[in-house]
Amino acid sequence: MLIPQAMAYAMLAGLPPEIGLYASILPLIVYGLFGSSNFLSVGPVAITSLMVASTIAETSACGFTGGAIIVGVMLALISGLMLLLMGLARLGFLMNFISHPVIIGFISAAAILIALSQLKHVLGIAITYDISTLGILPYTIANSGLINVVTVTIGSGAIALLVLANKPLEKLLLSLRVNNNVAAIICKLGPIVVIVLGALTVKIFALDQTHSVAITGSIPSGLPIFDLSQFDFSIVKQLLMPALIISLVGFVESMSEAKALASKRRQKVEPNQELVALGLANISASVTGACPVTGGFSRSAVNYSAGANSGLASIITAIFIAISLLFFTPWFYYLPKAVLAATIIVAIVNLIDVKGMIETWRYNKADSASLIITFLTVIAFGIELGIVAGIVVSISLYLLRTSMPHIAIVGRVDASEHFRNVKHYDVTVYRDTLIIRVDESLYFANSRYLEDRLLIAVAEQKQLKNIVLICSAINFIDSSAVEALTNLIAELRDSGVTFHLAEVKVPVLRQLQRSELLQQLAPGKVFMSTHDAVQELCE
Amino acid sequence: MLIPQAMAYAMLAGLPPEIGLYASILPLIVYGLFGSSNFLSVGPVAITSLMVASTIAETSACGFTGGAIIVGVMLALISGLMLLLMGLARLGFLMNFISHPVIIGFISAAAILIALSQLKHVLGIAITYDISTLGILPYTIANSGLINVVTVTIGSGAIALLVLANKPLEKLLLSLRVNNNVAAIICKLGPIVVIVLGALTVKIFALDQTHSVAITGSIPSGLPIFDLSQFDFSIVKQLLMPALIISLVGFVESMSEAKALASKRRQKVEPNQELVALGLANISASVTGACPVTGGFSRSAVNYSAGANSGLASIITAIFIAISLLFFTPWFYYLPKAVLAATIIVAIVNLIDVKGMIETWRYNKADSASLIITFLTVIAFGIELGIVAGIVVSISLYLLRTSMPHIAIVGRVDASEHFRNVKHYDVTVYRDTLIIRVDESLYFANSRYLEDRLLIAVAEQKQLKNIVLICSAINFIDSSAVEALTNLIAELRDSGVTFHLAEVKVPVLRQLQRSELLQQLAPGKVFMSTHDAVQELCE
Repeated sequence: MLIPQAMAYAMLAGLPPEIGLYASILPLIVYGLFGSSNFLSVGPVAITSLMVASTIAETSACGFTGGAIIVGVMLALISGLMLLLMGLARLGFLMNFISHPVIIGFISAAAILIALSQLKHVLGIAITYDISTLGILPYTIANSGLINVVTVTIGSGAIALLVLANKPLEKLLLSLRVNNNVAAIICKLGPIVVIVLGALTVKIFALDQTHSVAITGSIPSGLPIFDLSQFDFSIVKQLLMPALIISLVGFVESMSEAKALASKRRQKVEPNQELVALGLANISASVTGACPVTGGFSRSAVNYSAGANSGLASIITAIFIAISLLFFTPWFYYLPKAVLAATIIVAIVNLIDVKGMIETWRYNKADSASLIITFLTVIAFGIELGIVAGIVVSISLYLLRTSMPHIAIVGRVDASEHFRNVKHYDVTVYRDTLIIRVDESLYFANSRYLEDRLLIAVAEQKQLKNIVLICSAINFIDSSAVEALTNLIAELRDSGVTFHLAEVKVPVLRQLQRSELLQQLAPGKVFMSTHDAVQELCE
Repeated sequence: MLIPQAMAYAMLAGLPPEIGLYASILPLIVYGLFGSSNFLSVGPVAITSLMVASTIAETSACGFTGGAIIVGVMLALISGLMLLLMGLARLGFLMNFISHPVIIGFISAAAILIALSQLKHVLGIAITYDISTLGILPYTIANSGLINVVTVTIGSGAIALLVLANKPLEKLLLSLRVNNNVAAIICKLGPIVVIVLGALTVKIFALDQTHSVAITGSIPSGLPIFDLSQFDFSIVKQLLMPALIISLVGFVESMSEAKALASKRRQKVEPNQELVALGLANISASVTGACPVTGGFSRSAVNYSAGANSGLASIITAIFIAISLLFFTPWFYYLPKAVLAATIIVAIVNLIDVKGMIETWRYNKADSASLIITFLTVIAFGIELGIVAGIVVSISLYLLRTSMPHIAIVGRVDASEHFRNVKHYDVTVYRDTLIIRVDESLYFANSRYLEDRLLIAVAEQKQLKNIVLICSAINFIDSSAVEALTNLIAELRDSGVTFHLAEVKVPVLRQLQRSELLQQLAPGKVFMSTHDAVQELCE
């Protein structure tokens, strides 16, 4: 199954099918030797292939005439070097800055674009175009006059069979009391049967001759050779940004898979080692003339369910693919492109995560905003801008939230030592002492906000003599906040209000001792507890 | 004093001196009508003038031949529109994202660059060059053969007098028992005396003729006219970025001044109204052929100490400048450029905030890093890149800090209900229950870090049955963190460890109820207090 998949993803990337197979030999072996995951299998995957396709279109629009293969090779080389360097610099933690909603939005939108990009193959529209956004849809419709009816029949038949061969077939087999494992194996064979059926149909009826059904055609037989002549350093600058995004997205996809598989067996995956292994795998892809690779789910899951528990599985797979390339390439000749496209479409539609979207929407509107913006940007402006927009928006929304922290005026619950928000509890407040709690660490973006809120509170309570700031939720105070607090203390003192702190955590207090704030505080004090403060100031 | 200052800043911007005066008429009146600060006085200021100078140099290097004045006018127009739109969109809060260390580093480095850029006038090196980085220094040294000895004498004499006329003169006068106020007024008159002396020296000895001392020369008499012919929309795209940065920096400088002055009299300044007022002031500058303006300290302080308490002061100042333009421009003819440069240098050196740098260094190394990177980037690559680098670095360091929160394993203090870090206190821990506290809200960038730390803790304690996560410092959990926690709960359950939460704040608990996390938690529980958890799980 890996063979038609690799060919299909090469086709998706706008490369000859054999490139997909080349990308599944040496990189697999290299990853098997260096990777920290025992189950991950690398090769071309759908989303990075779409990015390769859009980069090829861009470079050719910018006047690069070296051809698609060189762009693919250079992307593999540059992104391999980037991954390797990031791994050596231990930058694996950077992937933490891509939030879950951004990943959901990004992958779902990319899946739609990928499915749309394969539509022309299923419809048999024999033209090429370089659009990697939703703009592909009206373009395809405009060319619907070119639909090849025989191809549509084969393509949609393949889609129907692939869908049926999955869950419905498994259910049927189980209801017929077939053994669980046997049923699973039969379902796994489904796609292969569909592909073989497709190829046989074309061959028997010579549909490629009589009805112009697009086929894979002849694939050069033989192993990829070590070939540096395909390096072209004149386009490096143009490829830096696409390569960075391919690296990033490939790494995130790969790590998600590796972690999901590893956690089932209580193993750990080391992000920096993964970066190094993926980097070397991509560099090895480039020197054998192949395109960027990463760890993909469908391929890795095969390894996992086959019980592979060392990098050996990857190496055995690589050998099988090499043997196919040596002896069996003529067998792929009649493979209809429509069937390959159908396998992509059926596989990719599962990546549209509607459940994740609904859960995010229910949980939090800011997270939904990141998701929706990522999704729409990918759909409208393409993959690269989409992931960048998603990261920028999610970080901005986080900054925005922490810049306007929750600030509560609190009062004492009965005669207890507990203090709660006056809005939610029936508590005792004091006429000349305001007790206020801020639920966030103080840093440059929120210190002026706190200052403004406190000054408003002071203006509203004319008889005020003391403000007690409860610092129990403050884990850090940066120097901008110290500056703002120091100014605030002076301003309040000028207007006859003394500022106090309470419940300052030990590390925060130690930090404050290195500034002039505590000297400036006098006659204000630092109280151990809010209770202490109230006892001294109000009783 | 505002008149030579405005001329000097126009010269710094690479514009004819009268532009500085034009910028001090209509904008002052407009700001006086719309601004929320009673003391702020707008006009050309040193830092924005330096940015105008570097933009003029860039556009001319990019082949714009329309001349410096048009660039100045367009910058005023674009940045005016930007400020106005930001004010109407209520984006004043964005200035909070420029941290105090970034401002210190930026202004100090800009002050050095400004002083260096004026060096050639003081040295009398009569060549023009367009460098706004430290590269100006070797360039000036290379041309030191062109030094005009008479000009150096005048320039350094002016610097010496200006320095002496400040604090030393005030001390002397006070020691001679001169009245405080009188001493202050005499010191304020110092710069004017120096300027008049300079002009008289040149005129009397005809130094401009005999020794080629550079003078201001003739300034066209008459008021600025309403003139849209200087708008050139062909360079708008090139000016967008510089105009944005001029707007940002101008706004920050203006707001800092306005707040500092207002707080002394217990008044509030409204950021969004300030944005609108500054925007209109800049648009009014552009239609009268002037350069960008903003609120500067030295000019505003004059208003303040003169007791100005309404926008009227600005309007009166504007009328005085208009009268000077109508009748007194010949008086400025013999003003030596070296003296104007000397006034800039003496004024600007005060902006180098060595004390702030030392305090930041002592307080926090991450903040110092933002400061140093901003400072060095401004010095080496210029003002625009510097402020951008500063903002990016300070936000990145904040994200980095929150992405690796403090996580403490805690134990019980004696038989109390208090739980403290096992590293700092002698506390009771439990063999089958791990109690852990995370001191930060959970969001996408730190949830995987927490997950990793918890899994390591579990791996180290083989007999573990329960983990209790104390959430007292968690003010928010975003959907990425919910996803990570849900996965973690399932992973821990698979390895026989039950996950519990304790001390979850009410708003956080309400938020979690909208996700599936609480259902997934079972048999784990949400405990009101850590004490409750220990009582149920360990006793």
